[in-house]
Amino acid sequence: MEVICVGNELLIGKTLNTNAQWLAKRITTLGLNVRRITVVGDDVDEIAAAVKEAVQRRPSFVITTGGLGPTFDDKTLGGVALAVGRELEENNEALEMVKKTYQRYIAEERIEKFEITPPRAKMAKLPKGAKPLPNTVGTAPGVLVEHEGVRLAMLPGVPREMMAIFDESLAPLLHEIAGDLTFYEASLGVERMPESDLAPMIDQVMHDNPYTYIKSHPQASEKVPHIELHFSTTSKDSATARQRIGRAIIQISEMIKEKGGKVQPMGT
Amino acid sequence: MEVICVGNELLIGKTLNTNAQWLAKRITTLGLNVRRITVVGDDVDEIAAAVKEAVQRRPSFVITTGGLGPTFDDKTLGGVALAVGRELEENNEALEMVKKTYQRYIAEERIEKFEITPPRAKMAKLPKGAKPLPNTVGTAPGVLVEHEGVRLAMLPGVPREMMAIFDESLAPLLHEIAGDLTFYEASLGVERMPESDLAPMIDQVMHDNPYTYIKSHPQASEKVPHIELHFSTTSKDSATARQRIGRAIIQISEMIKEKGGKVQPMGT
Repeated sequence: MEVICVGNELLIGKTLNTNAQWLAKRITTLGLNVRRITVVGDDVDEIAAAVKEAVQRRPSFVITTGGLGPTFDDKTLGGVALAVGRELEENNEALEMVKKTYQRYIAEERIEKFEITPPRAKMAKLPKGAKPLPNTVGTAPGVLVEHEGVRLAMLPGVPREMMAIFDESLAPLLHEIAGDLTFYEASLGVERMPESDLAPMIDQVMHDNPYTYIKSHPQASEKVPHIELHFSTTSKDSATARQRIGRAIIQISEMIKEKGGKVQPMGT
Repeated sequence: MEVICVGNELLIGKTLNTNAQWLAKRITTLGLNVRRITVVGDDVDEIAAAVKEAVQRRPSFVITTGGLGPTFDDKTLGGVALAVGRELEENNEALEMVKKTYQRYIAEERIEKFEITPPRAKMAKLPKGAKPLPNTVGTAPGVLVEHEGVRLAMLPGVPREMMAIFDESLAPLLHEIAGDLTFYEASLGVERMPESDLAPMIDQVMHDNPYTYIKSHPQASEKVPHIELHFSTTSKDSATARQRIGRAIIQISEMIKEKGGKVQPMGT
């Protein structure tokens, strides 16, 4: 899987990319791997290039965030259309979704009346053959399109809209791809041992536990070197997964204590 | 400019990529543009591919974060070496920096003694012809290397180490590239007006103020539609920049008020 985040606000550092983290965590928890996250600006050619490059790496899925709204700088659908070589055309189902949202705004007395102005119609112009995904908390629908066997899903950049469409429309599709695979993780805190002394122990334990990935994270805030060891594995069977991680934790804990270090369990 | 962040923890959503935001903001404030941010995992081939692709887009600078430490999963220098077609070799200057750090740890009584074990020597193995950048707050030096006219700077993933090396060693180089250019921004809050009604006004004002970029950001937390309009420009001259942004704000404020909307100044 790949994630592409669209928005100048991410490239100027105005906005922290919490969408990327949320998606990465959700996708990982579903048992799938995010191989790459790409951030590009509000530019049709940049978006198209990023989408084309991602498709060439043949992931099962590419998810984009941002750039689906009504303003001129919402360019994701244009970029995707260019990347997959299809025209943008008004999609009736999407237009109905947009209308329904404004009707809801009227019912909620947020606006008094509405008409389908060009900026509003823009949100319903999808690449030919694409399917709109209902946005139950905002205006712009999500979009799903398949190209060369790769499914591309476009989500809005507003976090609660992105989350709602992901959970309602994409999670079930991803769950199908992942099957029974699930991701498991645990952490161990290490004190009184520099990371460079841990390095050969991690090597050894990963060698002895080939399905368990271990990564050390120095915690910068501590004056005394304090390191988080993060253990993860993906498995069909939670008992196997827990066993794998448990075995690796026990093995490395003994090695650390033998060398004078201190370990303590940590929440993940 | 491009930024490449290396780390499985970013791809599984364990860590929020605050490094990318910090770098993007810093680089933008220096008057330069970040064109793309790429996140890849701890994999030599993935890192090498991302670096090669970035170099092919001919940015003035590529900055990487993460993967410089002593453990097996610190693979950035191997990936960069592969991308630029150079061997990794022990760099004396870098080795002296690593030794000095451990000597400082002894002086601070954080460790009792040290020797240059293979994991520690690893931090001083740089692509041939590279220059180490002093790390005044941690162990692994930063690295600077030039390839096909593109400068590549590798920084650690621990935020305070990344920040220190950036500010001490890279900011002066970037300042030279940027010259007198500086980035300016301001924000305006808009109420009682949906984003789709703002869209044509933004179009008009950007058309009339070609050097000013305006982007609307819906604020998801408000029940009443509340939108942040963000204005930015890059200029050699702060008076011109402020004038440009001021003119755009006045023009759009009048258009919004005329249509029944409400505006208020916002901090950026």
